[in-house]
Amino acid sequence: MEWKLGFKTEEKRKKRIEDRIEKQAFRQAELVSASNSFEIIIRSLIKIGAGTENKFRMTFIKKINMNIDFNKNTDGLVPAIIQDASTKNVLMLGYMNEEAFLKTNETKKVTFFSRTKNRLWTKGEESGNYLHLVNIKNDCDNDTLLISVNPEGPTCHKGTDTCWAEDNEPNFGFLSQLEGIIAKRKRMSEVEPELREDKNSYVVSLFDAGMNKIAQKVGEEAVETVIEAKDDNEDLFLNESADLLFHYLILLKAKGYSLKDIAEVLEKRH
Amino acid sequence: MEWKLGFKTEEKRKKRIEDRIEKQAFRQAELVSASNSFEIIIRSLIKIGAGTENKFRMTFIKKINMNIDFNKNTDGLVPAIIQDASTKNVLMLGYMNEEAFLKTNETKKVTFFSRTKNRLWTKGEESGNYLHLVNIKNDCDNDTLLISVNPEGPTCHKGTDTCWAEDNEPNFGFLSQLEGIIAKRKRMSEVEPELREDKNSYVVSLFDAGMNKIAQKVGEEAVETVIEAKDDNEDLFLNESADLLFHYLILLKAKGYSLKDIAEVLEKRH
Repeated sequence: MEWKLGFKTEEKRKKRIEDRIEKQAFRQAELVSASNSFEIIIRSLIKIGAGTENKFRMTFIKKINMNIDFNKNTDGLVPAIIQDASTKNVLMLGYMNEEAFLKTNETKKVTFFSRTKNRLWTKGEESGNYLHLVNIKNDCDNDTLLISVNPEGPTCHKGTDTCWAEDNEPNFGFLSQLEGIIAKRKRMSEVEPELREDKNSYVVSLFDAGMNKIAQKVGEEAVETVIEAKDDNEDLFLNESADLLFHYLILLKAKGYSLKDIAEVLEKRH
Repeated sequence: MEWKLGFKTEEKRKKRIEDRIEKQAFRQAELVSASNSFEIIIRSLIKIGAGTENKFRMTFIKKINMNIDFNKNTDGLVPAIIQDASTKNVLMLGYMNEEAFLKTNETKKVTFFSRTKNRLWTKGEESGNYLHLVNIKNDCDNDTLLISVNPEGPTCHKGTDTCWAEDNEPNFGFLSQLEGIIAKRKRMSEVEPELREDKNSYVVSLFDAGMNKIAQKVGEEAVETVIEAKDDNEDLFLNESADLLFHYLILLKAKGYSLKDIAEVLEKRH
């Protein structure tokens, strides 16, 4: 009798813990994206040692899945856009059924339902060029997934980085566009002055003047940025900081480098 | 009789011109992307004044379309991923039939075939939030389009910038990730020293030391970059340039700004 009571109390205590964990986990699941929440739950459960990981794995998977409408299309598949988490380039589009979605979450390697193979297909299972899962997001209509990944090797079966025959180059937004403009100006400075389209380009004149002038400008703009950092005029600070970055990009180009090279150095340090 | 002969010669001449233009146009079409080629042809035809724009519009459209396999799916639709040309964020996924594709090319406003409305649907036709066409690419299997656009206003019908409830913020690749790390360190510097997770962070120590120290570091690293720019040691130049950019990002954060603000200043100037 005593043992039975003790058992019941222990059961009740476990149930209370389980309920509390489930509640917390689902609250978190609403705050963060599906794949993250999944990890949070499993980690918490293992940490607490309640031994209920598997039960919750299934309960939770059902819960997060409910939002994805796998039955919208008659074939039970939803399109999944695969985007590089770092460069933001779109790598490919695949299709997932519920099983592929669950397997992707479990293994952290993107797995599709291949319509040509008519079976689950873990991208990279043959080539070794896996797509390592970073994050899955479900869209406003619950019928399209946006999946961030870190790709291993080229994604396309034709050997290119993306299925649109592109190089998966890092992108620095407008700064990349600006680098393109600076590169054009550098090429223009290599043309005879009288043959140039634009004869009054400031950047061309810097390349004409050479390394001393360009390096000097970086030094000057840095000092001006430092001075404005010590004051409270927001516009002046932003403008001097923009001048510094602009001349910094020109200096990189003059030395034969680009932001991509600098980002690589910084990423290696990290 | 004479009139008839003249007519035939004129017809032949016109045919020759048309053949030549068609050949040239298709050669160009292979060199540049679909949407660009289309414009090139139409522009050339109007310029030459052969009055054959419409004939070629249809011939050419058939030619470029042949690559897109609209019949792969039974509904005659191919998925079209919509990506912001500048920020690289994925905005939405829609579906196109051949007519929607042609209309998008013609009007330069992205037009889908809406499965719910069961008709052509120019995104923005009601809201005014058009997706202005920049470029269309067809994938390796000819069944998925990647479309770069400049969006007008938020894309999602729920009012958010993207259909994954995201802000369409500019992205600077790894530099954006680095800004995230620096922001974390700044928050850490606002916590009592004994409560900090990481007690030996260099960046936290800079924020602790304050503006003078951070500004001084930017000045120092700029001078070191200038010195290395004058030498030929590639590693030293890259490392000093990386140091300069790193401390520049810390200075921006210390002043309450980010690369996004600087890119905006530079973009306005451009």
